[in-house]
Amino acid sequence: MDSLRRLASVPLGRVVFTRHALPAVRPVNHIVADGQIVIRSSAGTILSTELAAFEAVVAFEADELDVKERLGWSVVVTGVAQLVKDPEETARFKSMIQPWVMGEMEQVIRIRPEIITGYELVPAVVPG
Amino acid sequence: MDSLRRLASVPLGRVVFTRHALPAVRPVNHIVADGQIVIRSSAGTILSTELAAFEAVVAFEADELDVKERLGWSVVVTGVAQLVKDPEETARFKSMIQPWVMGEMEQVIRIRPEIITGYELVPAVVPG
Repeated sequence: MDSLRRLASVPLGRVVFTRHALPAVRPVNHIVADGQIVIRSSAGTILSTELAAFEAVVAFEADELDVKERLGWSVVVTGVAQLVKDPEETARFKSMIQPWVMGEMEQVIRIRPEIITGYELVPAVVPG
Repeated sequence: MDSLRRLASVPLGRVVFTRHALPAVRPVNHIVADGQIVIRSSAGTILSTELAAFEAVVAFEADELDVKERLGWSVVVTGVAQLVKDPEETARFKSMIQPWVMGEMEQVIRIRPEIITGYELVPAVVPG
């Protein structure tokens, strides 16, 4: 659960998926709620139309990496992307996430983690 | 080429690929040289063994997003990952990239951009 807490501590991550047999990736702002990654989307977007609509498997990555110190962490969650269909649940999630981009963003997509991988960047030992 | 310049302006990006039919992603530090994304890797890693060795198609994403202002950009490059085999070229690239993580990192992998997509986050209009 430490990894999910880390994911929850940053506002932004990247949805990773396959499109037309090619690896693809989009940055998106997210929250973690009820043990899931929750993001907002608009009806016309790839996320809504091609991923959540078909319950595609996606990865979601977030990190916090200190460029100067070369320290930090990265968490990758793999799971199914689903459109939240229950209106009450949709409203509840929408009240919790402010979308960063313009548009209606009337949909809510959740990613239920099946695999959670966390790694940490530790300082490299520089030979004296 | 503006997008590649942006990619070159940040030290860190994410390699996006497919592994065991699942979307996967790893953060990595990179440079842009000769119009390609160049990263270092160790012989035993997924990047070397599963991607570059088979010249797999990968995506490489980098962004610079201002959490407070909700402004910024993201660039995604799609292309083939290749192990750099020429010893002189390997040495030249190695002298240009300091790996962030421990390990030998004796290999150099290049991603030749086939598709470059850049987008920019513009301020959302908040209704008065």
